[in-house]
Amino acid sequence: MLTTWVPLPEDTPFGIHALPYGVFSTADEEPRVGVAIGDHVLDLAPIAAVENLDGAHVFSQPSLNPFMALGPRAWRAVRGWIRELLAEEPHRDLVEPHLVPLADVTVHMPFTVADYVDFYASEHHARNVGAILRPDSPSLPDAWRHLPIGYHGRAGTVVPSGTDIVRPSGLRRDGDAATYGPSARLDIEAEVGFVVGVPSILGRPVTVTAFADHVFGVVLLNDWSARDIQAFEYVPLGPFLGKSFATSISPWVVPLEALEHARVAPPRRDPEPAGYLHDADGDPWGLDLSLEVSWNGTLVSRPPVATMYWTAAQQLAHLTANGASLRTGDLYASGTVSGPSRDERGSFLELTWNGAEPLTLADGSVRTFLEDGDVVTITGSAPGPDASRIGLGEVTGTIRPAATG
Amino acid sequence: MLTTWVPLPEDTPFGIHALPYGVFSTADEEPRVGVAIGDHVLDLAPIAAVENLDGAHVFSQPSLNPFMALGPRAWRAVRGWIRELLAEEPHRDLVEPHLVPLADVTVHMPFTVADYVDFYASEHHARNVGAILRPDSPSLPDAWRHLPIGYHGRAGTVVPSGTDIVRPSGLRRDGDAATYGPSARLDIEAEVGFVVGVPSILGRPVTVTAFADHVFGVVLLNDWSARDIQAFEYVPLGPFLGKSFATSISPWVVPLEALEHARVAPPRRDPEPAGYLHDADGDPWGLDLSLEVSWNGTLVSRPPVATMYWTAAQQLAHLTANGASLRTGDLYASGTVSGPSRDERGSFLELTWNGAEPLTLADGSVRTFLEDGDVVTITGSAPGPDASRIGLGEVTGTIRPAATG
Repeated sequence: MLTTWVPLPEDTPFGIHALPYGVFSTADEEPRVGVAIGDHVLDLAPIAAVENLDGAHVFSQPSLNPFMALGPRAWRAVRGWIRELLAEEPHRDLVEPHLVPLADVTVHMPFTVADYVDFYASEHHARNVGAILRPDSPSLPDAWRHLPIGYHGRAGTVVPSGTDIVRPSGLRRDGDAATYGPSARLDIEAEVGFVVGVPSILGRPVTVTAFADHVFGVVLLNDWSARDIQAFEYVPLGPFLGKSFATSISPWVVPLEALEHARVAPPRRDPEPAGYLHDADGDPWGLDLSLEVSWNGTLVSRPPVATMYWTAAQQLAHLTANGASLRTGDLYASGTVSGPSRDERGSFLELTWNGAEPLTLADGSVRTFLEDGDVVTITGSAPGPDASRIGLGEVTGTIRPAATG
Repeated sequence: MLTTWVPLPEDTPFGIHALPYGVFSTADEEPRVGVAIGDHVLDLAPIAAVENLDGAHVFSQPSLNPFMALGPRAWRAVRGWIRELLAEEPHRDLVEPHLVPLADVTVHMPFTVADYVDFYASEHHARNVGAILRPDSPSLPDAWRHLPIGYHGRAGTVVPSGTDIVRPSGLRRDGDAATYGPSARLDIEAEVGFVVGVPSILGRPVTVTAFADHVFGVVLLNDWSARDIQAFEYVPLGPFLGKSFATSISPWVVPLEALEHARVAPPRRDPEPAGYLHDADGDPWGLDLSLEVSWNGTLVSRPPVATMYWTAAQQLAHLTANGASLRTGDLYASGTVSGPSRDERGSFLELTWNGAEPLTLADGSVRTFLEDGDVVTITGSAPGPDASRIGLGEVTGTIRPAATG
């Protein structure tokens, strides 16, 4: 049983089995790569330099992209090295001076986003949204069970946890007319984001089995959504301004390797999907991650990632099936995670059934959609080895009033 | 009347009034910024160094992004300086050694694409597509006359003119089932792309009047489209794999300043759009650009950009109306340009009315959608000063067979 000499606070999300990567800075130094352990950041660059680690320069960069581009052999080697440093008492003298209290650092965007794609892979979510927004249509779109439906979002407005979210303005339907103003139906989408490390070549699809050769790790993701703006604009080309104002991610990227114990078989697919979407036998990429959504401190939902119909491996295969290439820093999101029960829904659209069933928070206040000043925090965890839990950290954001003029 | 001492081939698109920027390399040197004049490239870096030009280093970069980020004052100053160099005989001795024949250079992607957005701003195109694909719905989507409908595309698969286009494979509807295979309805979309130079701040919309403070220039753009893949996947989140395999752009970015004589009033809008979309009085951004689409050498269409319902200035204001920020290298496309006549349609979906009205090319061959080996070239031009024409260059691509297995 692996333990660490680093003193860990009780209930820390980041024990010896998590070891997520991020980018941090201290008052007098440039942003660089670190690993979170307990309530500290391990400053990798100086230790890697002392130890003459191959490719040590990637840790002095202000983004994980150069490290992520090195690929799975390097990821495994570095993770193994860090585990040794933190587990074995003899390394303590070397390492301890490079443990910086999280309280003393600024945490930045962990990577530069290349393209951002959002999927729609929860059957419960798709059915709920269909029933609410398109009551006269079939509850699942025609193609839904044949392929993982997805679309491109705005990479330039992916922001790190803690960034304030200014309420977007836009055009909403108003009878036969359209009126412009602040969104009155500002919502969240609780999701998991997958971060690509290794690029692929234009014209060469990535197979389901090559998932772990390309994807570096996961983040928690909140795809803020202005439902009224989205409802007016989305036919026929999909969501645009209803989504593009902000997408928040957790700043600590948990490596895929840390999620080995979270892998589970995905739900049975019916009909059997096309060959390029077949799950590899005995190599399932369903992930038993547990999310928790808090609204002004009240836990309102526990979305279960294991219920997602399409896996991240299938999504990557689909994304590239037409020959589209991957770049280091590509980010793709699972789609809103909703389970079968009401308290497992990953959006307020669903939780309040489009406002018809308001929620009462712990302080007695009543909510349908987000009000100015509201704070939403999504946390997550996964089963680890030795009955441990691996924390996925958190993604949080506070709603600020719409800009005027 | 401005003339140049550089010998120009007859019918060159790139005379003294165009002066588009691109990135080129010679056999023994790194890619860097150049300006096309006739059948030469002016190698800016060495001349800027000799002349001690402020910020000369931007011309030694393998992308226009650093130059584009300098903003309109720098763009105007540099253009004025280049015009002097090329117009005035006394500069000839200094400049002539740095004119490299286009035949001797490799031309690269001119800029690094940040986010890519595609609009849908031609009323003729939107009506044609609606009539073909959604015959039971209104011919224009509800929101179409209220806002410029658009969506995000894949930035990582924007490729320069001349890149081969491998026929994408994907799932197509087949009765109640779905079958996987090479697209049988591979199409083009003839468009104009607008390239952002100056970024904006998250939460601060860019007004219609600030268009020229942010947009550096224009390219020709072909948004290749697999109509069968698109038709199956696009409800409710919009086009995805039907588009994301490739978008081609012309490699020479024509600065907005060169299009001063092409500015015309856009069509009358009814209903009057919301305030943030109002055209500035006396400052119209309709653009009288003429496109020509050639299919295996046969001119099949002349799409007129002046007929576009929404201008690029309105599209930029819309894109940022929700507070979304701009980055240097953002690319947004006009949407398929189609005029009212059949021979002005900017897609083969429209030109052949979804295959029902095949085209006969000059060699007697008959076409509905693209076949392997087909070559599509889009060229364009604009009115310049002194009754001249300003060439926009060309974007071309050849269809290669689908990848196997």
